[in-house]
Amino acid sequence: MTKVRAGLAISADGFGAGPDQGLDNPLGKRGRELHDWQFGTRTFQNMIGKDGGSEGVDDDFCARGMRGFGAFIMGRNMFGPIRGDWPAEAWNGWWGPNPPYHAPVYVLTHYPRPPLVMGGGTTFHFTADSIETVLDRAKEAAGGRDVKIAGGMSTVRQYLRAGLIDELHFAISPVFLGRGESLLDGFDLPALGFAVTEQALTDKAMHVILTRG
Amino acid sequence: MTKVRAGLAISADGFGAGPDQGLDNPLGKRGRELHDWQFGTRTFQNMIGKDGGSEGVDDDFCARGMRGFGAFIMGRNMFGPIRGDWPAEAWNGWWGPNPPYHAPVYVLTHYPRPPLVMGGGTTFHFTADSIETVLDRAKEAAGGRDVKIAGGMSTVRQYLRAGLIDELHFAISPVFLGRGESLLDGFDLPALGFAVTEQALTDKAMHVILTRG
Repeated sequence: MTKVRAGLAISADGFGAGPDQGLDNPLGKRGRELHDWQFGTRTFQNMIGKDGGSEGVDDDFCARGMRGFGAFIMGRNMFGPIRGDWPAEAWNGWWGPNPPYHAPVYVLTHYPRPPLVMGGGTTFHFTADSIETVLDRAKEAAGGRDVKIAGGMSTVRQYLRAGLIDELHFAISPVFLGRGESLLDGFDLPALGFAVTEQALTDKAMHVILTRG
Repeated sequence: MTKVRAGLAISADGFGAGPDQGLDNPLGKRGRELHDWQFGTRTFQNMIGKDGGSEGVDDDFCARGMRGFGAFIMGRNMFGPIRGDWPAEAWNGWWGPNPPYHAPVYVLTHYPRPPLVMGGGTTFHFTADSIETVLDRAKEAAGGRDVKIAGGMSTVRQYLRAGLIDELHFAISPVFLGRGESLLDGFDLPALGFAVTEQALTDKAMHVILTRG
């Protein structure tokens, strides 16, 4: 049974990315600090082609956030820093020739363009369809595996509001950004049917899994 | 040198108390869950007259939040569930005949009443003066020890906004309340001069100390 999952690295004051996102700051100013818990893990090091890295709880959550997915959905602002119409010289994503998805990735955008086939099994599909239609397509493509709502905040909020997410992983870091993209502002997760089903605190982050009942 | 400190137990989604506070729910619905990290500690058990309890990081933060203060300031809604004018049969606070403050406690209220002398050195002073005037009085009374802005959320927010708090302790629990009293909504702590100067995660809470530079 395909589950729809999302994983969010947020600050202690609730921001999932820093302000002023752009080419030099894909995660916004100070946004990297939200991911300190995963940079050192074996799974992350492995993803960027390196050996070593830590094992344990942080590594487990990092791995769970990347494995078991048959399709991904992301907002156009997560795919790249370009807004509006696509320039002639195409932007091919942040991730180089072999992105870490290895599956179809549906990019929500008001500016569709032809599919972009990358190495390692990743194809980016650009679509202006409704979030529901895109999710149906992603579920079908996932072939029984899970679908990940990969981000950013706006995309996750749209799917949350529509009641289409089954499981949320929060990795909360002891960091205060003050400004940026707020994830939960105005959301009442218990009222949306979510309850904490798992939790683990490491020396770097507080991990919480919420499941919709 | 007297420091002005506040300590807040908040949920992972930023609430410092649950909704529907009242006589049966002094911390609001589910508000007790924000304090799970301290109930089992030696300091807390000692405070309620019991032996035993855990030592370690949670206990250290619990102790730091109670010791070293020469005066306290709290909002009237923290002092009790009664709103508006005081009834003839006076409410004497939640804490019984020997409250855990052992120092003057200034209660901000639009409805002043005579001071209330309790056991163990605690006297509640009810004042309609400005938050600045009350803080000056509390600092003088503290005699070189620190002043604690004890709560609730509205009182802490007023002192934060006025730039009058030097140090904040957050104990963030892996709990999502969805509704309640939000502490930080609209606050940019880095812009107010706060930086994280200490952090420690236990199996129950993420502790962060922020200091104003």
